[in-house]
Order: sequence, then C-alpha cells, then structure tokens
Amino acid sequence: METISENRAFGGVQGVYRHQSQVCGCDMTFGLYLPPQAEAGPVPLLWYLSGLTCTHENAMVKAGAQDYAARRGLALCFPDTSPRGDGVADDEAYDLGQGAGFYVDATETPWSPHFKMWSYVGDELPRILDANFAIDPERQAITGHSMGGHGALTLAMANPGRFASVSGFAPISHPSASDWGRKQLTAYLGADETNWGRHDATLQMRAVGLDAPLLIDQGGSDQFLNLLKPEALVEAMATRRQPNTFRMQKGYDHSYFFVASFMADHVAFHADALGLR
Amino acid sequence: METISENRAFGGVQGVYRHQSQVCGCDMTFGLYLPPQAEAGPVPLLWYLSGLTCTHENAMVKAGAQDYAARRGLALCFPDTSPRGDGVADDEAYDLGQGAGFYVDATETPWSPHFKMWSYVGDELPRILDANFAIDPERQAITGHSMGGHGALTLAMANPGRFASVSGFAPISHPSASDWGRKQLTAYLGADETNWGRHDATLQMRAVGLDAPLLIDQGGSDQFLNLLKPEALVEAMATRRQPNTFRMQKGYDHSYFFVASFMADHVAFHADALGLR
Repeated sequence: METISENRAFGGVQGVYRHQSQVCGCDMTFGLYLPPQAEAGPVPLLWYLSGLTCTHENAMVKAGAQDYAARRGLALCFPDTSPRGDGVADDEAYDLGQGAGFYVDATETPWSPHFKMWSYVGDELPRILDANFAIDPERQAITGHSMGGHGALTLAMANPGRFASVSGFAPISHPSASDWGRKQLTAYLGADETNWGRHDATLQMRAVGLDAPLLIDQGGSDQFLNLLKPEALVEAMATRRQPNTFRMQKGYDHSYFFVASFMADHVAFHADALGLR
Repeated sequence: METISENRAFGGVQGVYRHQSQVCGCDMTFGLYLPPQAEAGPVPLLWYLSGLTCTHENAMVKAGAQDYAARRGLALCFPDTSPRGDGVADDEAYDLGQGAGFYVDATETPWSPHFKMWSYVGDELPRILDANFAIDPERQAITGHSMGGHGALTLAMANPGRFASVSGFAPISHPSASDWGRKQLTAYLGADETNWGRHDATLQMRAVGLDAPLLIDQGGSDQFLNLLKPEALVEAMATRRQPNTFRMQKGYDHSYFFVASFMADHVAFHADALGLR
C-alpha cells in the first residue's frame, strides 16, 4: 500500500492511500481520517460513501466531518466511487462508469471485470483497513450522500449486525424506479430486475428492514428530489414500523453545503450508537 | 451584481456573486456567507483573504468556517485573489499574475491596469457589501491564509481602527526578504523598495504596529516555513511589545487541513472581539 499524502488535521491524521484491489482488478485510492485517539489504540470507524462524479477526495475536503470525528474519537473512511484507470471501462455520461459505480458487483459486459464496488466497500477494503490501521473492525457505522446514501442503506440492510448505525444525506432511495438507477442497474446487472433487489433501499426496506438506528436528512429544495424518491422510502419505513428519523430540511439543496450543515448531527448520531463519549 | 449561486448552509446562505469592479477594471467574483442572524438585521463581517493560486472558492468550500460563523452570527467574505479574464495580464508562474495579486495596487507594466487588490479588498468591495447585504460596516474583522495572511496583516496595520481583530494562518510575514515577495513586489511595485513598506508585515510591525487583538497560527511542519519567515514577524512583535498570540502548531503543514483545524479558534477570537455572544 502506497501513502499518497498525510496531513495533520484536528489533532489526528488525514491520509490518502493507494493499493491494488483484488476484487476491482486495479489500483484503488481511499481517504482515511484517524482521530487523535487512534494513537492510544483501535478506534471505531464511520464509512462515508460518496455520490456520482466524486472521488475519495470530495467529502474528505468539503464535508467538514473531521472536526466532529476528532472530538468523539471516530475514524472516517472515504472510498472512491468506482474503479478507475486506462484499462477500466467508462462511459461519456457522468452517471455511468467511472465515478458512478453504484455500489454493485457488475455482471455485464463491459463492466464486470472491474466494477465490483459492493465487494470492495463491503469486504475487501474493511479487511485492508483492519490489517493496516488502528481501526476496531467490530465497531463500524456507515453513511453516504446521494448514490453513496444508496450504497450505505443497501449494504447495511444486506449485512445485518455489521453496522451499529446507518445514516444518509439525500440518498437515492428507490433506484429501480428512477432514472438514477434503472439505467445503471440495467447496465451493470442486466435487464432482469429480479437481480436488482438488494440494490434498492425501498425494496429492501419492504423485504427485510434494518436492524440498526437510522437517520436520514433530505434537502427540501434539492434539485434532484424527483430522482431521489424519498417518498417511496419513507412510505416503506412507516409501513414496516421501521425505527428511523427522517428530516426534510427546508431550503437545502443537494450540495456539500447541505451535507456539511448536518454533518455534526450525523457524526454525533453514529458516535452515540458506537458508545463513544 | 449577478448572483452566481446561493446555497443554504448552516441555517444561513452561502452566496457567490459577480460584479464589475471599478478599481480592477474587470468582473470580480466573491463568496459571501450570511448567517441566519442576518435575517433579523445587519451582522458583523469577517474577511478571509486567500493564498496563492486560490479563487474565492477554496476557503469557502474547504475551511469549514461557516459552521462556527453561524453559531456566533458572523458573516464571512471570501474575495478572489486577483483580477481575472482574457484582458488581464498573467504570468506562467503560479506565484505571479492571476491568482497571485498579493493585495497591492500595481504601478508597473503590465500589471497596473487591473491589479488593484489593495483598493479592491480595502475599499471597493466593503462598500459593495455595505450597499447590498445585511452587513454592519462598523463591525469588521480580518483573517487570511499565506498570501492572504500577508494581506490581512498589512491592510489592518495601514487602516487603524478599521478591524476589531486580526488573525492569520501561516501568513507570508516578511515578503521583502523572501522569494514569496521580492519577485512580486518588484513586478507589481517596481524595484524601489521604499515603495514596498506598507506591504511587508514585519516592516509595518516595526514601524507602526497594530491597534487590534492579533492571533496567528503557524504549522510547525509547514513545507514553506523558509518562505513565510514567521521568525522575523515574531521578533518584531516581541521587540515592539505588540499584544499578540502566536502559536506554532506541532506537526501541521500549509494545507487547508491546517486552516480548518484551527478555524473554530479564529472565528471565536473574532466573534469575541466583535462582541458577539
């Protein structure tokens, strides 16, 4: 594993690392923030999954999470949103291919050789962090923005017991019924929708629900509300009596200003669930 | 004046605006954060002057100041670092021309027609904010990073009584004795160093000092320490018995992670000086 950069931040270290991914078959880059408490021993970890067009870097520099994480002793991991590189398939559209992995394991041509973000974020990268950093693998939580909120919700529902808490910022909530979803799931997984189920938060909420505390913030002036479809997810949660807090935040849009505005609440929510003081 | 964007953030509004600058003779873009308290009436303003290569945007999205400003009811202005545009002189180097205005009024060819950042930040832009936004022009403070720290210190010392408080993140502290300074002051102001004086914080500290509370943070592992020359400024401050707090922060570099790490302290320092609760 190669260290790209390490910057002291809020008493801890914001690192960027590159490694060869077995499942993605290419080099992958991620950001990892270790709070000052990690010097004394393993600390809990909050995953932050990013949205369309993002790399590991966007949230790492714009979401403002390190301040709050340092206060509570929480590590933060910022994975990339897709495999990348010259040998990796891509598409001209911003919402397919590199930068748009959608947190699935692709089965279809030309995506299947590298687009394995489900296995990468859910399995390979956690093991790499556990082996190389002062992370406590038994204490993890997950959040994400937009496509990353979709990833957080679907990974959490497919892995009961894995995450102490789950949250989302404006998640893509019902991709199999949205242009942010149908196109990508068809491309990556094929046209047979029976293979899509675990990758749709609303369908998974109806089918299995979530065994962890859940917080979702959604901007009320989000320019992508018609693509995100929060109404489908909240209906499914209410019908299931799923414990959750869903907040429609008046006037906020889809930007990182929205994410940053509520990051303190999300970090506190996860830190509480992880038993941090 | 044209509104480029407005995003709700921390209960207030992060705006980006463009206007025709009389002194710079071109369109200029700036960021302005208005906290929620601005809805009830004019609020105090903290200027944040950015460093080499930056636009209005870098600190606005990476320094994390809005959270702290919103809690105290402080507006934030993020000016650009130079005039820009096709008709504006430039240089191949990152540290001269566009993105490197050095907060001076250029007198030399080819810079003098547009490079008037001293007058722009010190005079024109304050009047524009006063005329268009819920800002209290009688309650202002100033900070900046690197070249912007240089700008903040020199503007404050040249305008006694203007700023209730002054701070800096790794300021260029003695430009007339540094490669970050001699090159630019020569280009913009000419080779006669007697014209440089008010644009060197160390020289101004020796000559006139500062009539406001002063806080400076400097990363102890800053890769540019030899160019910043904090030792000259602290020597001048101590010799003068200038009231100040200077903190050499162990392990921190020159990046925005350093700036963000201490932003809460700086905003609190200015808010206290401005009488905000």
